[in-house]
Amino acid sequence: MSEKKKIYKPSPISGFPEWTPDVRIVEQQWLDHIRRVFERYGYCNIETPSVEELDVIAAKGEDVDKEIYVLERLQADEDDKKEARLALHFDQTVPLARYVAQHFNDLIFPFKRYQMQKVWRGERPQAGRFREFYQCDIDVINVDNLPLHFDAEMPAIIWEILSSLPGMENEQIQIRISNRKILFGFLKSLGISDPDEIALITRCLDKIEKIGQNEFLKPVFDAITDKKKLDLITNCMAEYVAISRKLLDVHPQDQKKALNLLPLFIKEQYPESQIDPQLIDGIDELDTVYNSLTHLRKGAVIRDLTIVRGLDYYTGTVYETVFTEDPSYGSICSGGRYDDLAGNYINKHLPGVGISIGFSRLFDRIRQKGQLPVGKHSPADIMVVMPNEEMRAVATQTAHILRQRYNVELSHGGKLKKQLATAEKKGIPYIWFPPFEDGLDHEVKNMKTGDQVTANPNDWTIDE
Amino acid sequence: MSEKKKIYKPSPISGFPEWTPDVRIVEQQWLDHIRRVFERYGYCNIETPSVEELDVIAAKGEDVDKEIYVLERLQADEDDKKEARLALHFDQTVPLARYVAQHFNDLIFPFKRYQMQKVWRGERPQAGRFREFYQCDIDVINVDNLPLHFDAEMPAIIWEILSSLPGMENEQIQIRISNRKILFGFLKSLGISDPDEIALITRCLDKIEKIGQNEFLKPVFDAITDKKKLDLITNCMAEYVAISRKLLDVHPQDQKKALNLLPLFIKEQYPESQIDPQLIDGIDELDTVYNSLTHLRKGAVIRDLTIVRGLDYYTGTVYETVFTEDPSYGSICSGGRYDDLAGNYINKHLPGVGISIGFSRLFDRIRQKGQLPVGKHSPADIMVVMPNEEMRAVATQTAHILRQRYNVELSHGGKLKKQLATAEKKGIPYIWFPPFEDGLDHEVKNMKTGDQVTANPNDWTIDE
Repeated sequence: MSEKKKIYKPSPISGFPEWTPDVRIVEQQWLDHIRRVFERYGYCNIETPSVEELDVIAAKGEDVDKEIYVLERLQADEDDKKEARLALHFDQTVPLARYVAQHFNDLIFPFKRYQMQKVWRGERPQAGRFREFYQCDIDVINVDNLPLHFDAEMPAIIWEILSSLPGMENEQIQIRISNRKILFGFLKSLGISDPDEIALITRCLDKIEKIGQNEFLKPVFDAITDKKKLDLITNCMAEYVAISRKLLDVHPQDQKKALNLLPLFIKEQYPESQIDPQLIDGIDELDTVYNSLTHLRKGAVIRDLTIVRGLDYYTGTVYETVFTEDPSYGSICSGGRYDDLAGNYINKHLPGVGISIGFSRLFDRIRQKGQLPVGKHSPADIMVVMPNEEMRAVATQTAHILRQRYNVELSHGGKLKKQLATAEKKGIPYIWFPPFEDGLDHEVKNMKTGDQVTANPNDWTIDE
Repeated sequence: MSEKKKIYKPSPISGFPEWTPDVRIVEQQWLDHIRRVFERYGYCNIETPSVEELDVIAAKGEDVDKEIYVLERLQADEDDKKEARLALHFDQTVPLARYVAQHFNDLIFPFKRYQMQKVWRGERPQAGRFREFYQCDIDVINVDNLPLHFDAEMPAIIWEILSSLPGMENEQIQIRISNRKILFGFLKSLGISDPDEIALITRCLDKIEKIGQNEFLKPVFDAITDKKKLDLITNCMAEYVAISRKLLDVHPQDQKKALNLLPLFIKEQYPESQIDPQLIDGIDELDTVYNSLTHLRKGAVIRDLTIVRGLDYYTGTVYETVFTEDPSYGSICSGGRYDDLAGNYINKHLPGVGISIGFSRLFDRIRQKGQLPVGKHSPADIMVVMPNEEMRAVATQTAHILRQRYNVELSHGGKLKKQLATAEKKGIPYIWFPPFEDGLDHEVKNMKTGDQVTANPNDWTIDE
């Protein structure tokens, strides 16, 4: 006890965000708001363990190995090797797929679920890159087939959320929608049907916003040596991008016509080609989804054929969401439709559609811009001060009564001046003064207006 | 695509609980309820990262090495060795201590915080033992000193929570309180002042419920060879336990007198001893805390001197909470006062008091007893059915209107019979029928009573 203690001064861990209470209160408001809207639309919550078996993650077959954190017991022994290795989940889609397969017989379809958990990416520390962060996802899964109307429900929910988060009032956001069948059908109509080539072009198009219209196809040039095919791809993709740009300029009513320029282009320029039915399907689906969203504010949702998402599993509708004034910040909310969620884990055909809010990244941006409505360090509506030891029972009972209706911090004593300073620093909006002696009145002070009035704890209410 | 896919059939991971949606809805109710009560008392929330640096955990110096999960990047390289090793936190006390030290200048004291996060124990798989589970903690920290009244606030909050969790209505629980100063002061008065010996006796007493009155001191016999000292300990601890038992039988008003049998015993049996002031302090503190809780139901709180908690850092009040009919299940909610929370991380004196609900263990017990009010697989209050394609716009608008007030799932079509079956299986309490053609009325069916009436979506309300 008498020896000098070693002080281990802690510091933040790169990529693992942590907020002081005033910021955390707003983060809770955000999470509550998102949950409330998800539930308004009838989505149920699930929570999966933080870990999955490494084999389950690997079964999904994506190139995520480098981003995975695996767990080891600090005192691991030989027996540990006999057990499945566990890894922290890096998204909520793999856990959802595994969950649906595992609990298939206990779920009711269409299965509408939301999930708001932390996910982890085992990346090297980098400024601004999170290694632990919240995602807020909704997905609908059905057996065998899922109506397209769910594809339209997703952006409506997201718009409702993002346009009313505290601190987001001045942010202009835009949901950009496309349908992968359009690109796939377009390419197939032109004879480009090798899955690897299609995947490569998809990945290139996904980066057009970042890399630019002139350079985005460079990886295609590096990979494909057939001059004729390269010319075809270059020519067609230029037209594809041009039509996509055109969509942004024409009135929504004329956009279907603009989309039909795609098959028209093929018929005119490559008359020997056969239009792939996927192309027409994709145009129709995009049109239906878009037209279901006309109740949203003008510009809230646009059709943008350059949206394809880099990941491989989407098969139809795809979404991205950007800050209109800073699209280069990247998508803050993305998703799409997939044909087969859990085919790696169960022999059922389970199509779905989902969308994911990159919560922590969005929250941190608004925080860094100083737009969060911070100020309160406490959920208390009222601080009841402790006048003196004789009146402790009265003060305690007062707090008890007020607590039936409000959040109340009871001060446990100290100099009155210090009690008041604490309430003020915590940002508690009302201070309650129990009487200093029997027979006197209670008083309550509104810290915003400075007004102080006599009051009865049994019937006093906060003016909203 | 055509090759036969390998199906990786997933199975539960031992120790990582996961619930189906109907159980998860009740778990959310529990978490919401606990949060609401914590906030009612003015506790603010913090959330710390899932990980701490291994050195931070090690600085706390407890014997937890074997229970820690450390993280490794799956594709770790040489550079990883240069960085601090990260480990999943195994409780919320170490993170709180680190947090308070790190953010000391941004916190307002007394710092009242609650924390409801998952914690991890890297144990070997065992039936019934969780490796990932929720804890729900409150603590109050102050600089230099903290009024004893906070020690009384903790059990009041816990009682309010545990006595009103859905499904706990029929459980008799009891909060058992003691004060470590009583044991420490009792032993010191008798000349037993070696910290190792005191710690050993404390750990033994902690196990008396499990091991029994006759055997609990066995480790003391194994460790101490001095016959005279052994006789002293045996004799005194028998008296200590006897007085503790006596407390349970006498009227609360007479308990202070019963507690004073401890110094009386010393004076009578060991007249040459000097009563250690800790003993008197402890008796007074326990009395004050207990007397602040007399508004709770009879038997809700008892004084029990055999409660000491095994962990080393408590210095005063200690709490345990048991099922009255099954105390052998162990404590479901424990805590106490500590002199110095963050001394390993900052050169400040920060006393505190806190309590922790072992959430997952408690929840799972009530679940296994079949007492949870499960039944709903959806948060929806109302399912709006889709009568036919022509009325889609009307149904969508109806859902939109009802959603201003309620949680609403809009069915996206299919045979009416199947839509109804889905609503029923999900346990949605009301089904809304938009008209099958223009000009007809809306109807709504109460699934519990079977009543079906015409209704207007703009003004219909659920009878509570």
